[in-house]
Amino acid sequence: MESSSAPQVIKCRAAVAWGVGQPLVLEEVEVSPPHPMEIRIKVVCTSLCRSDLTAWTSQAQASLYPRIFGHEASGIVESVGQGVTEFNIGDHVLTLFTGECSTCKHCTSPKSNMCQVLGLERRGVMHSDQTTRFSIKGKPVYHYCAVSSFSEYAVVHSGCAVMVNSNAPLEKICILSCGVAAGLGAVWKIADISEGSSVVIFGLGTVGLSVAQAAKLRGAAKIIGVDTNPGKFETAKAFGVTESLNPNDSSEPIQQVIKRLTDGGADYAFECIGDTDMVSTALQSCCEGWGLTVTLGVPKTKPEITAHYGLLLSGRTLKGSLYGGWKPKSEIPLLIDMYLKKEIRIDEFITHNIPFEEINKAFELMSEGKCLRCVIHMPK
Amino acid sequence: MESSSAPQVIKCRAAVAWGVGQPLVLEEVEVSPPHPMEIRIKVVCTSLCRSDLTAWTSQAQASLYPRIFGHEASGIVESVGQGVTEFNIGDHVLTLFTGECSTCKHCTSPKSNMCQVLGLERRGVMHSDQTTRFSIKGKPVYHYCAVSSFSEYAVVHSGCAVMVNSNAPLEKICILSCGVAAGLGAVWKIADISEGSSVVIFGLGTVGLSVAQAAKLRGAAKIIGVDTNPGKFETAKAFGVTESLNPNDSSEPIQQVIKRLTDGGADYAFECIGDTDMVSTALQSCCEGWGLTVTLGVPKTKPEITAHYGLLLSGRTLKGSLYGGWKPKSEIPLLIDMYLKKEIRIDEFITHNIPFEEINKAFELMSEGKCLRCVIHMPK
Repeated sequence: MESSSAPQVIKCRAAVAWGVGQPLVLEEVEVSPPHPMEIRIKVVCTSLCRSDLTAWTSQAQASLYPRIFGHEASGIVESVGQGVTEFNIGDHVLTLFTGECSTCKHCTSPKSNMCQVLGLERRGVMHSDQTTRFSIKGKPVYHYCAVSSFSEYAVVHSGCAVMVNSNAPLEKICILSCGVAAGLGAVWKIADISEGSSVVIFGLGTVGLSVAQAAKLRGAAKIIGVDTNPGKFETAKAFGVTESLNPNDSSEPIQQVIKRLTDGGADYAFECIGDTDMVSTALQSCCEGWGLTVTLGVPKTKPEITAHYGLLLSGRTLKGSLYGGWKPKSEIPLLIDMYLKKEIRIDEFITHNIPFEEINKAFELMSEGKCLRCVIHMPK
Repeated sequence: MESSSAPQVIKCRAAVAWGVGQPLVLEEVEVSPPHPMEIRIKVVCTSLCRSDLTAWTSQAQASLYPRIFGHEASGIVESVGQGVTEFNIGDHVLTLFTGECSTCKHCTSPKSNMCQVLGLERRGVMHSDQTTRFSIKGKPVYHYCAVSSFSEYAVVHSGCAVMVNSNAPLEKICILSCGVAAGLGAVWKIADISEGSSVVIFGLGTVGLSVAQAAKLRGAAKIIGVDTNPGKFETAKAFGVTESLNPNDSSEPIQQVIKRLTDGGADYAFECIGDTDMVSTALQSCCEGWGLTVTLGVPKTKPEITAHYGLLLSGRTLKGSLYGGWKPKSEIPLLIDMYLKKEIRIDEFITHNIPFEEINKAFELMSEGKCLRCVIHMPK
C-alpha cells in the first residue's frame, strides 16, 4: 500500500566524500522522494566494505565527486514511489548493490545473478534515469552502486532492496548485504565444493573468513588460510581455517608449500584479496585435473589477470562471481533464515560498532587492516 | 602373451629433425627393444598435428635435437616388454601422447585425465628411465611426447597405447589420437554443452571443426566460426558451423559482432587457435552469468593468458583441457566405436594422404594453412 500523502524532499545528514581519498564530511543533503518503482529507506545500520574503500581511493573514478559511498545496509522503508507494490512503509529491508529486475534473460535463468537492468551501477547515478537522488544546495551528489547508504536516508530501486524478516537484528544482518554473502555463495553456489576436499584461501578478511566458514560447514577436510598479516590467524582458526600460512615466513614460493600440504595442489582456491597477481598463485596452488580457482576480489590496482596457459590446459578452471552468485532478492532471505536458526555465524565478523559521526574511523581501521566489519549505526 | 624370443634392436627409417625448423631427413635409426612395461609398434599411419609443428619451430626446445616428432599414430604391436600382459604381438593400437597408468590419484578419479606417471612428456625422453629408445650410430635421438611416430617403428609405454577394434581402419583412426578427440571432448566432457545453446569457435582447423561437429551433435542452435582464412568457411559449414566470421572483414571488434549475433554473448566459446591473446576475446564473446570459455590451443608464442578481472567477476568461467578431458585408454575406444557406427565423422578431416618419404610436404601444407589433417602412410 502506498502512503496517502506524496513523499517530500527530506533534509538529513550524509557522509559526503568531496574527492578521492578525502575524509568524509557530514553534510546536510537533500534526498529526493523515490521515483516510480523506487523506495526511500531510513538507514539503520551500514557496514564498510573493502570495495567502498577501493572506489574511494580510485583515481579512475575521480570525476564522480561529491559522492556518498556505502552499499551494505539495513533499514526501514520510509516511503515508496509510484508503482511499488511489494514494499510498504515500515518494512525492514537490506539494500542490494546489484539488483534483480525479475524479468530479464539473466533473472529468469537459474544460472545467473547478473541482472541486465539493475546490475552493478558504475556511473554514480540511478539506473532508471541516470540522475542522482541526493543534492547539496541543489547540486547533485553522486551515488555508489545506486545505494549510497552512508546517509540517514537513501533512495534505491525497489529491485535493489530485499524485504527481511522483522525478527532479524538490523544491526547485524547489514553485513549480509555484500561481503559475507559473497564468501558463502562462492563456496556453496559457485565452487559447490564437496565434503572432504582441500581448500586454500588467499586473504583472511571478511570475504576469506566467510569462505572458511562455508567450507567448514560443507565438510572440507583441509582449509588453508594465506595472509601476510599473522594477526588474522587466531580469528581464522575460529572460522574453520585448519592451517594458516604467512608467505613472508617461507623462502619457498607459497604455492609450493601448499602443493606439499595438499598432495599436489588443493581442490579449490579462493582469491579474496583483490590482487590480480594472486590469481596465478591461486591457480598454481590448485591441483591439475580438477583444481578450481574462484576469484572474488575487486582489485585495488592492476585489473588484468595473467596466468600461464599450461595451468588451464592441465585441467584447472578459473571462475569468478559477483555477490557469491546469489540471486539477491530471491536468495539473500535464505541466508537470513540460516542466521536466525544459528546455522551460520555472522556476529563474529563485526569487530567494531561505530556511531555515524565517527564514520572516518571505520575507513582508518580498514585501511590499517585492523577490523573485519565495522558496523556504522545511524542516529535513532 | 609375450613373444618367445627376446626382441632385438630394429634398424629402420625415421624422419629425423636435426634442428629447430629444419626439414626432416629420412635416416636409418636403431630402435631399441621395448623396456619392461613398454611395447614396440610397427607404425601404420601417423598424422601431423599442429603441436608437432609448434614444437619443431620452438626455440625453447632447441636442445632436444636430433629429434623424432609425431604423436598421432596407429600401428601394430611388434613386440612387448617384460611385464606387459594387456598387449599381444599383432594387436592394433593407437598411440597416446598422454597416458594412463590406471593407479595414480588422477587415473583413479573420474574427474581427471592428468595421469601423474605417464603425463605429457616434455623432456624428449621416455617416462620410465629418462633415456631414449632411438639412436643413430649409437647416439641418442630425442623423443616427442614419448611417442615419436615419424618412424617405421616406435617404442611407447604400454600405458601410452590403447588397443583398438581390428575392424577400424588404421589409416583413418590415427587422427583420433589427438586433435579430433580433443575437440569432441572439449564440447562433450569439458563444457558439457546443452541443447539449443550458442557456441563460438575461434580457429577453424581440425580442433575447431571437431568442436563444431560435437556442438552440432549436441544440438547447439548457433555455431559461429571465426577465422582469418575465409578459405575454411565452406568446409566449416559442412561440419556444422552456422555462421562464419572473418575478423578482418569488420571494423568493429569481433567480440562486439558476436555479442550482437548472440543477444549479449555466446553461451560457450572455444579457443582453438593456440593464440593466448584470443582467450580474452573469447571471454568477451561469452555472456555474463554463465559464459564459459574453453581454451584448447597450445600457443605458438606468448604463453601467458591475460584477461580483465571483470570478465570473470561477472560470472564467466575459463577452463582448459588436454586431450578433451578424455581418459585416453579408457575412453578413446568409445570414439572409435562411434566412428564405426557412423555417429561421428572423421574421414572429412583427412585432406591429404602422403607417403612417408614426402613427410616434409605435410609440414609445408600445415604451415601454409592448406590442410586439415595430412595422414602420413608408412611403407607396408
